[in-house]
Amino acid sequence: MATQRLASWATSLQYADLPPQVKQAAIRSLYNWTGCALGGSNHQTTTKALKALSPFFGKPTSSILGRASRTGNDDLPTRADASHAALINGIASHVHDYDDTHLETIIHPTGPVASALLAQAEASTTKVSGEEFLLALVAGIEAECKVGLAVWPKHYDVGWHITSTTGSIGAAVAVGKLLNLSEEQMAHAIGIAATQVTGLREMFGSDTKCFHVGRSAQNGLMAAVLASNGYTSSLQALEAKRGWANVVSEKQNLTEQIDSLGKVWETEKNSFKPFPCGIVVHPIIDGCIQLHHDIKEKGLSVSDITKIHTRVHPLVLELTGKKTPKDGLQAKFSVYHGGAVGLAFGKAGPAQYEDEVVTSQPVTSIRDKIDAVADEKLGADEAEIVAEFADGQKLSKHIEHAIGSLEAPMTDKQLEQKFLDQVGQALGQEVASQASKSCWAIAETRSLGDVVNNL
Amino acid sequence: MATQRLASWATSLQYADLPPQVKQAAIRSLYNWTGCALGGSNHQTTTKALKALSPFFGKPTSSILGRASRTGNDDLPTRADASHAALINGIASHVHDYDDTHLETIIHPTGPVASALLAQAEASTTKVSGEEFLLALVAGIEAECKVGLAVWPKHYDVGWHITSTTGSIGAAVAVGKLLNLSEEQMAHAIGIAATQVTGLREMFGSDTKCFHVGRSAQNGLMAAVLASNGYTSSLQALEAKRGWANVVSEKQNLTEQIDSLGKVWETEKNSFKPFPCGIVVHPIIDGCIQLHHDIKEKGLSVSDITKIHTRVHPLVLELTGKKTPKDGLQAKFSVYHGGAVGLAFGKAGPAQYEDEVVTSQPVTSIRDKIDAVADEKLGADEAEIVAEFADGQKLSKHIEHAIGSLEAPMTDKQLEQKFLDQVGQALGQEVASQASKSCWAIAETRSLGDVVNNL
Repeated sequence: MATQRLASWATSLQYADLPPQVKQAAIRSLYNWTGCALGGSNHQTTTKALKALSPFFGKPTSSILGRASRTGNDDLPTRADASHAALINGIASHVHDYDDTHLETIIHPTGPVASALLAQAEASTTKVSGEEFLLALVAGIEAECKVGLAVWPKHYDVGWHITSTTGSIGAAVAVGKLLNLSEEQMAHAIGIAATQVTGLREMFGSDTKCFHVGRSAQNGLMAAVLASNGYTSSLQALEAKRGWANVVSEKQNLTEQIDSLGKVWETEKNSFKPFPCGIVVHPIIDGCIQLHHDIKEKGLSVSDITKIHTRVHPLVLELTGKKTPKDGLQAKFSVYHGGAVGLAFGKAGPAQYEDEVVTSQPVTSIRDKIDAVADEKLGADEAEIVAEFADGQKLSKHIEHAIGSLEAPMTDKQLEQKFLDQVGQALGQEVASQASKSCWAIAETRSLGDVVNNL
Repeated sequence: MATQRLASWATSLQYADLPPQVKQAAIRSLYNWTGCALGGSNHQTTTKALKALSPFFGKPTSSILGRASRTGNDDLPTRADASHAALINGIASHVHDYDDTHLETIIHPTGPVASALLAQAEASTTKVSGEEFLLALVAGIEAECKVGLAVWPKHYDVGWHITSTTGSIGAAVAVGKLLNLSEEQMAHAIGIAATQVTGLREMFGSDTKCFHVGRSAQNGLMAAVLASNGYTSSLQALEAKRGWANVVSEKQNLTEQIDSLGKVWETEKNSFKPFPCGIVVHPIIDGCIQLHHDIKEKGLSVSDITKIHTRVHPLVLELTGKKTPKDGLQAKFSVYHGGAVGLAFGKAGPAQYEDEVVTSQPVTSIRDKIDAVADEKLGADEAEIVAEFADGQKLSKHIEHAIGSLEAPMTDKQLEQKFLDQVGQALGQEVASQASKSCWAIAETRSLGDVVNNL
């Protein structure tokens, strides 16, 4: 009954049912996603897909984020049909690995759902209000994370990219909600989405990783549109013996997870990345940025550092132990690069992960002074750093919970700084500042079109 | 190395490398597929999808088969962008469950591959010859069936619809061949296709089953187009620890299967369905049609039958054990319906799977007299039938190999009759006859456009 119960819950959910902290989390999620999608709009992975697929684009109902406000002309379209807009925006929003994380499942929940939803909302013949949009967004994220929790961790362990495999389902529920599907249509939409299992972890490190996010947005959007026209799937798509959960995971507790809908809100547990790289590097970056400021305050210089000793959770070296990354993509998997840019620049945004920066002398010279020791006694969001200076001085830093963790969430102000940084770098400060204002005001807008016009 | 070896084999394959019987099998496969796509073009599942998705259609480069030659005007488009044409033609070609079967894997190989290939060929700015087309078709079908064999049977057993999960890969290879991808681009195309694992068996009996075929065609087409623009995936997409084969199946022998490329041709093993339903039902239908004629010859009447005992392979009841189907779709999964129409009408074409026929008294009254016993000693294409009459007489029939099996293949003439039957029913005899002639001549055509103009 999981499929039908999910459909029933999603179709009957009202905006008034959402607790205030869930609404707030939804706004922050959408805000952060928009920043990532705009920030990733110029990335070559995004533009490659845009160029390859633009000959297939239909009626341009929906925005390709960041294209209209871009200076310069590259002949690439600024709009597309809703399905292709969902694809390209989904790719852009994940291309810097900078989007949000539902920590219990490591799903990046907003990408698939918001990419589909925004594109469909723009294509809608009636105005979509901010509240309607946020309601559909929450329905989608809850669906996505609940089915993700149901198959975690076996599903991820065997090799599925859980963001997109569950993202199709989340996107279908969100778009289905926007389209006002009946309970039965919603169940069929879930089934059509569930049968499109997109995303192998083997693709990590290639253009295809972020394609997963865009494709799952398309999968869900198409599923909802087909179901709204009476297209049928299975009303037991998720729970049947040969349904989604059993096929994609050795173990599942779908019933338990669906039972918790509306009682435990997953949207509220969403976290945001302060840095565009693997989350395990964040404690070191956080500590090194703090040291950067300490060094300045004390009138010292980073160039006088002779050695940086760090202690980290063992997983950090297992996942991000790359000593000498050759480009931005490899640098995302290097704790040494993360520490080096933190110390050198006092920040670690997309600009610090550009290929030229990764191999620049100021960065590599600090990087080579960093050593890292795995220590099982440390938490995954914990780190210890000691910097030794030429004159014998030492400065140290202990990060208990890295910024961005649930214990130390990014503040709205920090989220805004992240938004302005990445959007500013891609599209200029004026666009960034306008977009930021529109996005924060999403809940109050009477027509989503007004928001999108500023993106 | 499986991914790169497959890419290398496919990119270097030449038309002259194809043995004559492989060319012939490819022509028969395409001919049969075209009949199915035209025959299914008016089916409500096809038109539902067409109606739902036409707002997303791009530049109309490619035919939606059967729409242009249709009499009457229903405001539905006759053409679409290549991706949507691939989807709709793929749906139409499988909607009657009447397409081809690679018996060792029960893959329906031509659907995903030809749907993508035809749509892309029509969108091509240069003329595509019949030989180029057939070459790409064979490359795609070989890829699809080899990766299917590599994961069979565990992959199917756990619940994947193997036609579409492998179909994405086959379609990517075929379109990639047409686009003249480099070896490396082809490997990336295979990876982008492999990461889109579409098709759960739970969807059988719903509109979504044939959606799988269309969607996998789209998956593969998009993969090849992205790769042709430099989009990257993984060069070990199929064989990696967390690559396609290991994620979608408990067991796999990919290396062995890829080794056999060009030595054992899967295209040659393709078989064609005389009846529009699951292949496991065919022995019973074949036997019941023969009994229908025996009964007539002996001056008996089907209505005097009191009981029909059948023995079948166990898979028959597992897959098609539905006792009281409610409509044409359910009837495809009912060995009882298949036997009943065979006995009642002496045939089992699309007309015998219309909703009204399925629930009609003459059919249900015979159906209710049929029992079926699973017998492991029987082959999958074997069946035993005993009809008992009111006066105590018995007539029996033993089918060793059902018509359409490799041991009893349909002749070209039988294939043509099937084509004319189904296309004639959908679009009239004149269209059917024209289309049939064009399709048989595919190998000689210098431009595929000339063929498609008659479809």
